Amino acid sequence: MRVLISGFGTVGQGFAEVMILRKDFFIERYGKEISIVCVMDSSTYVSNESGLSPNELLERKKTTGKVGTETYQDSLKVMDSVDYDLLIEVSPTDIKTGGVGLKNIRHALESGKDVITVNKGPLALKFCELVSLAKKNNCKFRFEGSVGGAMPIINLCRESLVGENISSMRGILNGTCNFILSKMDNGQSFEQALKEAQQMGYAETDPTNDIEGYDAACKVVILANSVFRKSVTFSDVNITGISSVTSEAIALAASHNMVIRLIGEVSDDKLEVAPRLIPKGHPLSITGTLNAAQVVTDLAGPITVSGRGAGRIETASAILSDLVSIMDDRKERGGKCRNQ
Amino acid sequence: MRVLISGFGTVGQGFAEVMILRKDFFIERYGKEISIVCVMDSSTYVSNESGLSPNELLERKKTTGKVGTETYQDSLKVMDSVDYDLLIEVSPTDIKTGGVGLKNIRHALESGKDVITVNKGPLALKFCELVSLAKKNNCKFRFEGSVGGAMPIINLCRESLVGENISSMRGILNGTCNFILSKMDNGQSFEQALKEAQQMGYAETDPTNDIEGYDAACKVVILANSVFRKSVTFSDVNITGISSVTSEAIALAASHNMVIRLIGEVSDDKLEVAPRLIPKGHPLSITGTLNAAQVVTDLAGPITVSGRGAGRIETASAILSDLVSIMDDRKERGGKCRNQ
Repeated sequence: MRVLISGFGTVGQGFAEVMILRKDFFIERYGKEISIVCVMDSSTYVSNESGLSPNELLERKKTTGKVGTETYQDSLKVMDSVDYDLLIEVSPTDIKTGGVGLKNIRHALESGKDVITVNKGPLALKFCELVSLAKKNNCKFRFEGSVGGAMPIINLCRESLVGENISSMRGILNGTCNFILSKMDNGQSFEQALKEAQQMGYAETDPTNDIEGYDAACKVVILANSVFRKSVTFSDVNITGISSVTSEAIALAASHNMVIRLIGEVSDDKLEVAPRLIPKGHPLSITGTLNAAQVVTDLAGPITVSGRGAGRIETASAILSDLVSIMDDRKERGGKCRNQ
Repeated sequence: MRVLISGFGTVGQGFAEVMILRKDFFIERYGKEISIVCVMDSSTYVSNESGLSPNELLERKKTTGKVGTETYQDSLKVMDSVDYDLLIEVSPTDIKTGGVGLKNIRHALESGKDVITVNKGPLALKFCELVSLAKKNNCKFRFEGSVGGAMPIINLCRESLVGENISSMRGILNGTCNFILSKMDNGQSFEQALKEAQQMGYAETDPTNDIEGYDAACKVVILANSVFRKSVTFSDVNITGISSVTSEAIALAASHNMVIRLIGEVSDDKLEVAPRLIPKGHPLSITGTLNAAQVVTDLAGPITVSGRGAGRIETASAILSDLVSIMDDRKERGGKCRNQ
């Protein structure tokens, strides 16, 4: 499996670290290592058809700020110059246009390459187009890490729950909001809690994307399209953030043995992100930066999964999970992985 | 896929219902229905190589109390008289000897048949022997429903988390105990809570197996052997139940924002079932009859899954999940499923 990585920020570097940590795992399971044949960051690239050393990539990024040895203008030309099987698209999320990530994913799928991404922009804006493109070109297209980081909700539904009819989903899909609301449970004001989230590095200087629910809404779109096979986009989601949640509301909820959580919801007639009352002791009443998602199934009943919603290695672990799943599929089917 | 069902109590009947509900699912995914070629209960059996009607099986059990039209003395002779691919072993759990379930599973694996079971007795007593037998005879052996009913912990670890190193597991593995402890959180005494659990049908007249932690310990053994590849049995588990948990202890925990839960734990140096303090808002602080399990992984961090730990259809849904997984494996590999 020859991998091209586009994007070498936090997640891209995390993935390179995971490739170092899992070298033996891949050799044991598939007979050889994953071969990273090209890496691009925003302005440079490096490629080698015999494979690049993850250690060297990380070292050069650290010392020079750039992953590559060459500069480029057009990422598609770089992609066309490389012989690869799988694109790992982890460039920065652009929720307005899809950005370079959308362009790269489209191009890879059109070229018959498998794609793994954690980039929410292309998925929230052009999900159906990309899935159709993958299908048309017989490519695998996976994106577990785009929703809830290490929380394995998409693959759980695709694998263990494949025989279930899933009627609805509710989830805590933004760890920053959950951290703020958890702090408010303990008596902090919204402003205090937000400030602490910023100090801890959970919230950005401009926290709008998190606290107004836009990030959670992207994930609702991805879940609606992938798990529920809807055909929806960002503008279809009704969004209310947490900036208007008051300490009084939190205290009132607590007096009824409830907490307020920002819940993303998908059902037949609903596509929504909004603060909701959750009973204490419910699987969605969790505190801190965790993410959680509960699907309601016809046979198994409600199934909830939770895990870390962000983090360098955590998000890279979701890419690993997708990568193993693609390689298992390709291997069993005697498919496209020429290097195996 | 020709199925032989041994046991036609709650779970066996639940599975028959699921086969009715999922008729179209199997036709769509595999081109034909699952064929139930033989069903045994404790004293009768019925077989038909062209397939039995689940509706008729359920109707006869309901009206006559027996699933079969013939009586039998030796279940192995019945099994030998039938041409089948997969044994679904759902006879009553015998945690002392493994009972007829152990005998049937051994015989099926020795005959080269795939096996799905939810029967904790054989798994808690003879796990390693049965896994070796399955391996030797190139059979699939699955048992998702034996731990936590509909909670998909084993398949999650086997599928989505396959690239992770799992260092430990902690779980709420007995819904009856969790119900009792949740009621005690609300001020009931242990005796009151137990009585209510019995009235609701969650606890048996003799509740020893649940409240002394024996049921949870069986599940700890199954998880230790399957997820952690240990080689342990029931007698290796340190077990403390919940009968000595006092209202005072619950109140003291609450004053520190904690709850007491009966936790099964597997780690390098621990195999234990005991009441533990869990912070409120932790994914294992859930209330009611739910089960939950948290695995700690090296890359993804802690991942928790929760779901209904018991129930006719819920447990049958775990069998469905195992069945689909076996059929997918066999189909892709052009394997043993002669009817596909």
